[in-house]
Amino acid sequence: MKPETPSPLVIDRIVRNALEEDLSRGDLTTHACIAADTQGSAEFRARENLVVSGLPVVRHVFRLVDETLTFVAHVEDGVLLNKGDLAATVSGDARSILMAERVALNFLQRMSGVASQARRYIDCLPEGAKTRIADTRKTTPGLRAFERYAVRCGGAHNHRNDLSSAVMIKDNHIAAAGSVTTAIQRAKAYAPHTTKIECEVDTFPQLEEALAAGADIIMLDNFDNDAVSRAVEFVQGRAVLEASGGITLERIPSLAETGVDVISSGALTHSAKAVDIGLDWLD
Amino acid sequence: MKPETPSPLVIDRIVRNALEEDLSRGDLTTHACIAADTQGSAEFRARENLVVSGLPVVRHVFRLVDETLTFVAHVEDGVLLNKGDLAATVSGDARSILMAERVALNFLQRMSGVASQARRYIDCLPEGAKTRIADTRKTTPGLRAFERYAVRCGGAHNHRNDLSSAVMIKDNHIAAAGSVTTAIQRAKAYAPHTTKIECEVDTFPQLEEALAAGADIIMLDNFDNDAVSRAVEFVQGRAVLEASGGITLERIPSLAETGVDVISSGALTHSAKAVDIGLDWLD
Amino acid sequence: MKPETPSPLVIDRIVRNALEEDLSRGDLTTHACIAADTQGSAEFRARENLVVSGLPVVRHVFRLVDETLTFVAHVEDGVLLNKGDLAATVSGDARSILMAERVALNFLQRMSGVASQARRYIDCLPEGAKTRIADTRKTTPGLRAFERYAVRCGGAHNHRNDLSSAVMIKDNHIAAAGSVTTAIQRAKAYAPHTTKIECEVDTFPQLEEALAAGADIIMLDNFDNDAVSRAVEFVQGRAVLEASGGITLERIPSLAETGVDVISSGALTHSAKAVDIGLDWLD
Amino acid sequence: MKPETPSPLVIDRIVRNALEEDLSRGDLTTHACIAADTQGSAEFRARENLVVSGLPVVRHVFRLVDETLTFVAHVEDGVLLNKGDLAATVSGDARSILMAERVALNFLQRMSGVASQARRYIDCLPEGAKTRIADTRKTTPGLRAFERYAVRCGGAHNHRNDLSSAVMIKDNHIAAAGSVTTAIQRAKAYAPHTTKIECEVDTFPQLEEALAAGADIIMLDNFDNDAVSRAVEFVQGRAVLEASGGITLERIPSLAETGVDVISSGALTHSAKAVDIGLDWLD
Amino acid sequence: MKPETPSPLVIDRIVRNALEEDLSRGDLTTHACIAADTQGSAEFRARENLVVSGLPVVRHVFRLVDETLTFVAHVEDGVLLNKGDLAATVSGDARSILMAERVALNFLQRMSGVASQARRYIDCLPEGAKTRIADTRKTTPGLRAFERYAVRCGGAHNHRNDLSSAVMIKDNHIAAAGSVTTAIQRAKAYAPHTTKIECEVDTFPQLEEALAAGADIIMLDNFDNDAVSRAVEFVQGRAVLEASGGITLERIPSLAETGVDVISSGALTHSAKAVDIGLDWLD
Amino acid sequence: MKPETPSPLVIDRIVRNALEEDLSRGDLTTHACIAADTQGSAEFRARENLVVSGLPVVRHVFRLVDETLTFVAHVEDGVLLNKGDLAATVSGDARSILMAERVALNFLQRMSGVASQARRYIDCLPEGAKTRIADTRKTTPGLRAFERYAVRCGGAHNHRNDLSSAVMIKDNHIAAAGSVTTAIQRAKAYAPHTTKIECEVDTFPQLEEALAAGADIIMLDNFDNDAVSRAVEFVQGRAVLEASGGITLERIPSLAETGVDVISSGALTHSAKAVDIGLDWLD
Repeated sequence: MKPETPSPLVIDRIVRNALEEDLSRGDLTTHACIAADTQGSAEFRARENLVVSGLPVVRHVFRLVDETLTFVAHVEDGVLLNKGDLAATVSGDARSILMAERVALNFLQRMSGVASQARRYIDCLPEGAKTRIADTRKTTPGLRAFERYAVRCGGAHNHRNDLSSAVMIKDNHIAAAGSVTTAIQRAKAYAPHTTKIECEVDTFPQLEEALAAGADIIMLDNFDNDAVSRAVEFVQGRAVLEASGGITLERIPSLAETGVDVISSGALTHSAKAVDIGLDWLD
Repeated sequence: MKPETPSPLVIDRIVRNALEEDLSRGDLTTHACIAADTQGSAEFRARENLVVSGLPVVRHVFRLVDETLTFVAHVEDGVLLNKGDLAATVSGDARSILMAERVALNFLQRMSGVASQARRYIDCLPEGAKTRIADTRKTTPGLRAFERYAVRCGGAHNHRNDLSSAVMIKDNHIAAAGSVTTAIQRAKAYAPHTTKIECEVDTFPQLEEALAAGADIIMLDNFDNDAVSRAVEFVQGRAVLEASGGITLERIPSLAETGVDVISSGALTHSAKAVDIGLDWLD
Repeated sequence: MKPETPSPLVIDRIVRNALEEDLSRGDLTTHACIAADTQGSAEFRARENLVVSGLPVVRHVFRLVDETLTFVAHVEDGVLLNKGDLAATVSGDARSILMAERVALNFLQRMSGVASQARRYIDCLPEGAKTRIADTRKTTPGLRAFERYAVRCGGAHNHRNDLSSAVMIKDNHIAAAGSVTTAIQRAKAYAPHTTKIECEVDTFPQLEEALAAGADIIMLDNFDNDAVSRAVEFVQGRAVLEASGGITLERIPSLAETGVDVISSGALTHSAKAVDIGLDWLD
Repeated sequence: MKPETPSPLVIDRIVRNALEEDLSRGDLTTHACIAADTQGSAEFRARENLVVSGLPVVRHVFRLVDETLTFVAHVEDGVLLNKGDLAATVSGDARSILMAERVALNFLQRMSGVASQARRYIDCLPEGAKTRIADTRKTTPGLRAFERYAVRCGGAHNHRNDLSSAVMIKDNHIAAAGSVTTAIQRAKAYAPHTTKIECEVDTFPQLEEALAAGADIIMLDNFDNDAVSRAVEFVQGRAVLEASGGITLERIPSLAETGVDVISSGALTHSAKAVDIGLDWLD
Repeated sequence: MKPETPSPLVIDRIVRNALEEDLSRGDLTTHACIAADTQGSAEFRARENLVVSGLPVVRHVFRLVDETLTFVAHVEDGVLLNKGDLAATVSGDARSILMAERVALNFLQRMSGVASQARRYIDCLPEGAKTRIADTRKTTPGLRAFERYAVRCGGAHNHRNDLSSAVMIKDNHIAAAGSVTTAIQRAKAYAPHTTKIECEVDTFPQLEEALAAGADIIMLDNFDNDAVSRAVEFVQGRAVLEASGGITLERIPSLAETGVDVISSGALTHSAKAVDIGLDWLD
Repeated sequence: MKPETPSPLVIDRIVRNALEEDLSRGDLTTHACIAADTQGSAEFRARENLVVSGLPVVRHVFRLVDETLTFVAHVEDGVLLNKGDLAATVSGDARSILMAERVALNFLQRMSGVASQARRYIDCLPEGAKTRIADTRKTTPGLRAFERYAVRCGGAHNHRNDLSSAVMIKDNHIAAAGSVTTAIQRAKAYAPHTTKIECEVDTFPQLEEALAAGADIIMLDNFDNDAVSRAVEFVQGRAVLEASGGITLERIPSLAETGVDVISSGALTHSAKAVDIGLDWLD
């Protein structure tokens, strides 16, 4: 299923913010060097293999800078582009295109970087594996909606959106509550009935306790593959099992083969690099 | 000189935005599991070697979440921390600390990632080199002020802030103006007298033309080291020379030895990864 | 457990907005009639029996109007006040108190109205009932965070916060997907693993289908008490059962006795009236 | 005369705020269950007798969510709808309609609730009565512009908009100024000449004093009908007389027959309930 | 009476906006040249005779830039300063003072310019005249609250704040309504009872009509002094009379002697120049 | 070259702000007096000789108030209009035009006032003079982008935009740094290589020192014409020379004849008055 794009209101808010940074005081160079009403066209092309993400954002960048520009996306977000492939074309007032170029690329390169990173993890999953790859809340401040979308474009899934989207009981919460059981009980009593309860566990006894206390999801923190396997076998589908900590691309295949439901990794967002996409002018 | 921190107003605006993302609908887990008025302390510690950047931002995160928290920075931004070193301590209401933790870390890990990336480039400069390492406008949308600050924390310099801060004539501008000379003349006539004129050149004839036309800065685009050397020799300080394109860590020493004034690279910001900093609770 | 107050940032944002409406162009009367530096004190007192909610909001109203005012809450939100009971005192510059009065009361009366409405539902639950009373998304635009908090102050629970907090499959979704089963399967495949799947059903066959397809929560739409009882018996705890539609105060006791897990009603927020709380000046 | 709708800028600001609450993180259900490009139409129909208000707001809700939707209002705000009557139709992308539905209804049901409440008061006025029914500043924080408009849709009038729109001298102001006369004199000297001076009085001597001091409007606070009659006779049109306090629907006819100019009641806004309006899908 | 300062929320909003313009990207010069923690003091002194206005705004400028600065106002707004007189002192971190200086002066010089302009008009009034001098809505976009306050600091009065504060019937409204009488009747029927009705008239017949129709205020548009005198005599206090159009400082004395109630002039705000106030550093 | 208009985003932000001031609570008069759907046209005409500036801003004012209005600019910004000349026409819904009129005129009159002021300075330049007239940062808070644009419309140039756009070393910076040389060295070391260094000097020795230290621009503060001439002769083009302080229209010709590069004056913005432009209705 094509991932849901961020709401138009969110795109509008974030793009305005970015344009204020770069463009709000004008573009001296373009205005001085390019004659008014000069027309032009330019193409967004991949300069490396990548999964594209951010085209609706780029469309809005151009629209806010100059609503007379024509932007055509030739592919949909989530598509794999090979080096040299065409992603989109923009045409119209040359000054406007030049003024919007850097902001457009900054979004597209970063979002495609996250999508490509996510795809790398997905590509490591064994054929037919039911394990999900999920992101975390380790996103760039101000860009969470865009990065979560990019993760989905890459084929991975999102974890909870924010501190209110699900309960996630960690070691500090357990310590403060006194036990896994008490923490889960309190959370179930307090949280909306529409909220899942996830509990992070470090040990097998904690796992058993969390399962007995009714956790919906149990996060196996830094369990090795053997421990994960045993957990899967023990839980028997009575809770969703999520492996986290020490996740590397190399480990994905073997970890997925344990049958764990979810593998989550902050690296999908916090360690993604911008990918190389260029805006090439057509004569 | 210690780099200038972003303005308090800018910090306030960006941090509010980030807290709205993560915290605006509350923290179910913390509220359910931690008793009201529980006190606690936690330490920010480096989990790898890094250059720290973002402590004033983190201070403001905690302040906005709960103004009664006490935040003490044990080092200043720009300091090199070794794995295990203490960066800062926060203490007070345990719920508040937990609610602010993720946003605080997201800023600190990313900003320190940029600072550390910048430092890696700086560390490649030969002893006594006068060459500057500079960033570009390839920053994360919405975080330019923070990333430019982090670049300075790492010991590198900033390039122009935005499209209005300096004239930067690129190939499209030259093509539209008809020649390097015309482009520079137009820019000098149009731009404020307080604005420098930079011109990107691909060839030696363009370099000569830009120099003759009075460019303040000439960017040597994808020149190899030999070509850069010849440019330095030819220009003799009559313009600032900036090398850009194909910049790698490995090439920094030899490139700096050409005597080029500035080496600029988008990688300082667009390819920096978040570094690992943890928030460890004290008993 | 005391309900979590809305985040200070959210309170700040909403209160500023309200003060702009009433106060941004000044208070001609107060300025003309009250001498500068006149001091005064005033008390918030219940003028009917009510559950109080909104004192932290009122505190912030006074703070933004004049940070030198002293506001003391004598009770905590969620407390039942009888007619005449004292809720809070404010003292300091008389002009400032008068200027802030209407906005403070508008928040306090509305929020306490919602809390009192919620408490009326709670009070109808039979002794020892495990059934929850929950609100809906039928909140006042712009005040959702405050109204959800007020619902909790009244002792009821919140339903999902917004369209992203949980999946809620309604008749249109089922019609579009083709069947309950398909809708639930699609939702499970698409939504984060941290998200619960709720499905609204109109008939018993739909209920069976939803349960078989793995819905976490099943909303019984306009089921009468007998039908709810049969549903409870059939489901046997394998999903959370929520009764909705045609909920009245009078029906709460009998409905709760069916053992249904949750009773949700938009009336908690969309039909709550402001309660009467006065601000009385002390001589 | 058709009431003036709130300014497009105000509608835009308030609607964006409301959409951020409900929609800014996406709609998991709709995206998962409804196929892209599914088209649909739905009708807003009254489910009880009501005065409609808010259709221009609803139009903007749909526009901001998806500018390709078509919204047709079949009646104008202020019209009385009987149970089952059609108010408006929306058609286009089914996902967009579903995503906007709740916010659209939340506005329409509340605003129509206020308009219907106002109409109930208006309907109590005797045939040919010149008495106005007016609202107060007891509006929902953040929605004053919308609620005042809804009051006008119901056929009632607005009182002053905010603390700057007119002088309103209350008991505290009189006490601080020393006398009714002094308070009115100070206000006349201080306020713009374009501002009316209203004075609240509790007794006949105060009424005489306020009239002599030149009050434009005199509010009779908690006067019974006999006292209001005497006031009307005494004042003889030399000031506008406004009755306030203890206003009930039942009392409107007799109170209006005293010939009082204005009856104001906070209940128009603070005690209005949302009315029932549904959005029904067409096959 | 000391004029009411703009609301703290309005000051905060406008000052943040101004600081974003000048300071949001940092102050390269100050940071480079002034050592960290350098302390300093500076004095605001009049460099010409002027009426000061804006000190609370300046206080907030310094507070937002650096809350550790100490700002002491030595006079109150509205006071006449002679060339060389001291208005205020600021002391603390020298960098912060320098960074805030230009924004502080831009506010203070403009606001004091308006106050001084207003005072010039006031000073032309004959001894004991009851005529008011009033501003108009011809204010600088974005600064209306500050300029209206400055007008009051100068001793003049404000006209209506905005299009909703009072009815003001002009020639276009009369033409559209068909007659002065109809226009006034419509306005009285439509506007809140708390709103005054002002009607602009060009001729004596219009004046008579407006009076008969019950206008509260009649604006005599471009009446010469004789015509104003006759109007005053004719109206006999039954409406407020406002002279407008062709107002010069020279004409104020004779115009005031006609006994007209109000003289309004856009020049108070649209033609005020910034006055010269300096910030002088102390050794 | 036609000056670059402010970015559409900046225009949108500033115009919304201005409309909120005047229009956010509606226009009672227009609504009451003008029938719905009344159509009309009106012309903006110069009522004195002036240089027009602000037409794109006015266009956006009308668009935000009512997007169905038609606005046609008959001239471009920067054109000299004689008294009576037509600048633009607006037509459509008469209510909308009336509601937008004051805000439109407030922008246009002020911006054209600044442009006309700038043109007065430009017109004083001797034929063929190469000297620029430049503005300063002494702009109206909140309107810097518009006033800088108006300055360009008048034919003058802009100085640095804000504290980050260029280094400007003033007496306090020199005093704190210890010497002109140290201040310039520190600034060169600290500032981006894309930033020019300007140094203000009071004396010839300072001038020599600044030149030797490598200042790009030297501001001659309060130098008389003779001193400026000597400076020009001494510097021989090795730095840009800017004369500032004591600049009057009368002095421009002789000062320009010294050959100084730039004459800067705060009076372009801080002492410009609004010019008279009317909006005349067509029958």
